[in-house]
Amino acid sequence: MKNIILIGSGNVATHLGIALKNEGYNILQVWSMQVDNAKFLADKLDCKFTNSLDDLVKADLYIASVKDDKIEEVISNFQNVNIVHTSGSIGLKVFKSFTNCGVFYPLQTFNKSVDIAFSEIPLCIEANNPKFEKVLLKIGESLSNTVVKMNSEQRKQLHIAAVFACNFSNHMFAIADDILRKSNINFNLLHPLISKTIKQIEKNSPKNVQTGPAKRNDKKIIESHLQFLEKNQQELYKLITNSIISNND
Amino acid sequence: MKNIILIGSGNVATHLGIALKNEGYNILQVWSMQVDNAKFLADKLDCKFTNSLDDLVKADLYIASVKDDKIEEVISNFQNVNIVHTSGSIGLKVFKSFTNCGVFYPLQTFNKSVDIAFSEIPLCIEANNPKFEKVLLKIGESLSNTVVKMNSEQRKQLHIAAVFACNFSNHMFAIADDILRKSNINFNLLHPLISKTIKQIEKNSPKNVQTGPAKRNDKKIIESHLQFLEKNQQELYKLITNSIISNND
Repeated sequence: MKNIILIGSGNVATHLGIALKNEGYNILQVWSMQVDNAKFLADKLDCKFTNSLDDLVKADLYIASVKDDKIEEVISNFQNVNIVHTSGSIGLKVFKSFTNCGVFYPLQTFNKSVDIAFSEIPLCIEANNPKFEKVLLKIGESLSNTVVKMNSEQRKQLHIAAVFACNFSNHMFAIADDILRKSNINFNLLHPLISKTIKQIEKNSPKNVQTGPAKRNDKKIIESHLQFLEKNQQELYKLITNSIISNND
Repeated sequence: MKNIILIGSGNVATHLGIALKNEGYNILQVWSMQVDNAKFLADKLDCKFTNSLDDLVKADLYIASVKDDKIEEVISNFQNVNIVHTSGSIGLKVFKSFTNCGVFYPLQTFNKSVDIAFSEIPLCIEANNPKFEKVLLKIGESLSNTVVKMNSEQRKQLHIAAVFACNFSNHMFAIADDILRKSNINFNLLHPLISKTIKQIEKNSPKNVQTGPAKRNDKKIIESHLQFLEKNQQELYKLITNSIISNND
């Protein structure tokens, strides 16, 4: 299964395409609705490009890396091919009637501009039959050190967990940054503390290393913090604090 | 100012005491209300210990590292000494009438069990006069690579920011862990994604690297996530999502 066509030219398609090419797979074509985007990625992969699904040639595997709300529509243009999508949120059901279909989900937030060691990105694999699953696992293992089988239900939970662990924690950093800016303090000062927070959860369950006023249920400090916050931040502070308190054993 | 007495034997006193001793300061005594705790730290520092404030000898500097709600009471037992506390939340006002008093606040969450390179911990210094400030800065610079002057107001803001950046982000990890456990997925799978999230904010403002369904205002995914969450997690998800959306330019 060496000849691959990329349906999509966004961040996932870009990083996956480069990783596949580096491992010796032939990327035959890149498709994108926007021909310029298709060309941009195709130039990197040294392959052909098109914005017409009718122009696609035969390939061993079609990888649909388009926005979640476009997957069903894009897939409906294919039949009798081996096909996967790369979404954490969309199940296997979207495929309807393919002999070989599956999901090839890299658990990472990609930016086109940030270099990533693809080998360190966990890949979550699902397929509609054991044989195709084996094929996808093999491709996955050629790209990443961490390849796990995961059904659609688990993948959905993983995606929700990632929203909390990454998107929401990043928003906590953004609020901290906002608070510090207003007091003319450099956010960099918090880096060692943030690094430590992350280091601790490498070997401990996050719940077991929780610290802070909420963990101690230190009402005096909590009240004094609330006085300093803007309304929106105040509501967040209260709700998260209460959640930590109710999480105490 | 070489001869120091530690008032307190908790995590901050322990790490600070060890760092001071390593830099050649003489720790004369450790005081704690619990004599066993005082002895435990004194043994590490090879010094005397007591649980009676009356037993304290003369020293160049007294460092009060006790719980926030005990600082005022403890300090009221001293007069005519050079004294600092180590709290991020308590201001200089707590000292009332000392010639030389200040704050020596290490911006880190300490566990007794986790080894820490003290030199990487930012120290925030405040004093009631420029001469004593200079003394404290000098001690700070012998212990840490990052020493900043910071008034009580700024320190309070920094502490609130740290609660968001560390305590609250850790709670986001705890919720992710909880969600994954229920689906029989190992939390470790999220480590690369979390590391990337942290790596990104080393060089970018957190707001500028925000990703996820809330950032995209992807209502379909947001709704589908909410269906899977427990009530408490649902409320957090909604409020944080709305906060991210309102933070979009």
